[in-house]
Amino acid sequence: MPELRKDPIIGRWVIISAERGRRPSSFGSAGRSGEAAMCPFCPGNERETPPEIMAYREPDSEPNGPGWRLRVISNKYPALVIEGDIEREPVGMYDRMHGIGAHEVIIETSRHAHDMVEMTVDEVRDVLWTYRERMIDLERDSRFKYIMIFKNYGEAAGASLEHSHSQLIATPIVPKRITEKISGAERYYRFKERCVFCDIIRHEITADERVIRDYDAFVAFEPFASRFPFETCVIPKSHQSSFLEMSEDEYLTLAGCLRDVLQRIHMSLNNPPYNFILCTRPISDECHEHFHWHLEIIPKLTKVAGFEWGSGFYINPTRPEEAAAYMRSIDTAEFRPVQRTGI
Amino acid sequence: MPELRKDPIIGRWVIISAERGRRPSSFGSAGRSGEAAMCPFCPGNERETPPEIMAYREPDSEPNGPGWRLRVISNKYPALVIEGDIEREPVGMYDRMHGIGAHEVIIETSRHAHDMVEMTVDEVRDVLWTYRERMIDLERDSRFKYIMIFKNYGEAAGASLEHSHSQLIATPIVPKRITEKISGAERYYRFKERCVFCDIIRHEITADERVIRDYDAFVAFEPFASRFPFETCVIPKSHQSSFLEMSEDEYLTLAGCLRDVLQRIHMSLNNPPYNFILCTRPISDECHEHFHWHLEIIPKLTKVAGFEWGSGFYINPTRPEEAAAYMRSIDTAEFRPVQRTGI
Repeated sequence: MPELRKDPIIGRWVIISAERGRRPSSFGSAGRSGEAAMCPFCPGNERETPPEIMAYREPDSEPNGPGWRLRVISNKYPALVIEGDIEREPVGMYDRMHGIGAHEVIIETSRHAHDMVEMTVDEVRDVLWTYRERMIDLERDSRFKYIMIFKNYGEAAGASLEHSHSQLIATPIVPKRITEKISGAERYYRFKERCVFCDIIRHEITADERVIRDYDAFVAFEPFASRFPFETCVIPKSHQSSFLEMSEDEYLTLAGCLRDVLQRIHMSLNNPPYNFILCTRPISDECHEHFHWHLEIIPKLTKVAGFEWGSGFYINPTRPEEAAAYMRSIDTAEFRPVQRTGI
Repeated sequence: MPELRKDPIIGRWVIISAERGRRPSSFGSAGRSGEAAMCPFCPGNERETPPEIMAYREPDSEPNGPGWRLRVISNKYPALVIEGDIEREPVGMYDRMHGIGAHEVIIETSRHAHDMVEMTVDEVRDVLWTYRERMIDLERDSRFKYIMIFKNYGEAAGASLEHSHSQLIATPIVPKRITEKISGAERYYRFKERCVFCDIIRHEITADERVIRDYDAFVAFEPFASRFPFETCVIPKSHQSSFLEMSEDEYLTLAGCLRDVLQRIHMSLNNPPYNFILCTRPISDECHEHFHWHLEIIPKLTKVAGFEWGSGFYINPTRPEEAAAYMRSIDTAEFRPVQRTGI
């Protein structure tokens, strides 16, 4: 069973998941399982994946067979497992718990080479609505404290399969960066009695230096202290602490914004690998007033990685103002997808 | 001039260094300046680098000419610049300061393809002693709060030149991960009245599950909650808060340990890219009793990066106990370097 272990100095939990099968000897060669000809996420290959948890499918189609347009499955190589108790316990001076959690894959479309930038707004909306449905379902499990939703696009960003998908991990702990954001936002709230994210939105719209586009209900901008070139934040303009607080219409609006931002990144940077991460309120956290959900989108452009991991010190070679100006200048009406080679 | 900008939510400072020349259009193609035939770090090419700050050289040789065995220069593309005042100031709701600092390169040897694993212990000792000399010199500059020393080895770990070198960055702020470690260690000290690192050393030597080797004055082990496969910590067994507290002899002992650990990593993982980072006491910090300096060595083996950056949540596919057993089993008497292709 995977384990969650706590760093005794800084208190961060790490998943130790030897079941994912990286033994010392497997690091030498660059084996890429994703290059196999058969795609387990394509229609007709449903038996190659764990059974589906939910799907949007034709009325007369059978579960785990063709006839779907979106499918959610358990990850075949889960970082955490769903069965069991957490059993938090000491190990000498250390702390650990069982690696309990959910690790799901959202197969966003039945079409193999059909990425989010090429989808219709309705298709993107279905993906976002699926995030919502899975979150609502998993929040009922009292073992979980946070539901992380993210997308790795392209091999350099950590994707192991080309077919468009996102992932969900429900964890019995709140990830460190979310805790840090909540504490930081709480500190600001205590001082100012205002949400720091709401203040940032106001500041960015007024300054108009780092805004990529001011949509109706959302705004996309490059953060003032961006760690990475073209790091982008998409955030609702009204105060909402959770992704689940959106109205039904807002999921469609967000789908339009997200696709627009991803198209701008695609066109600006020649279809780069990227990650996006949904930062939302933890399940039972009372941070309604000071936290504000948002999406972080990070194109994977620079290689200087280990040093940043080690020091927490980031060197960003592109001014956010310059990245924003570039992204603003893109005309997405002229969007034509650039094909990737490989994953 | 580069800028230091503070994240308004979590308080982390980021260097925005547009001078390093990554404009939007330069990310598309994979231009690798390091592949040029001429190596600016090789003897005879001294004029291709900024003037040397110090060097170990033949008695009759001239500065900035051949005849050296180790050279320290300013980074030609510095992340921070040495001239100027910090001038911390608000920008609306944000904070920024001038990107003042030192960014130096330690060219570890005059021989082009001669990495730390192939050096004599005396040669490695000279590198460590140079770190010490540069730290002592830069600590006199009252603008600086921390001196970061690190090595990027291999292109995937962020190196842009093949010739063996390490880097030093002196900053007017303390990097976030160092601050986190100091606060965590202080919390432990207040509770236990003992250094958490000293307790970890005792625990690891007794448990003997994650120790790679117990040297005389140092120990190398895989941390209990390692974020990465084969992440390794090298730490002095006696309590020392700063790298500068070692006796002269201990630099030689440490050189032997460091070379041994790097050789084990080289042999276990087929000459992987790696980073090492020196974590030491900030210049004017009074954490003598609760902080304990150490070296973190992180082979670059896994690609899942952006998600971890975004969430602070790490999934390690190799149990530290398994990595330690593998590293222990290596016989470094049989060390033969494996050549790298490229940087």
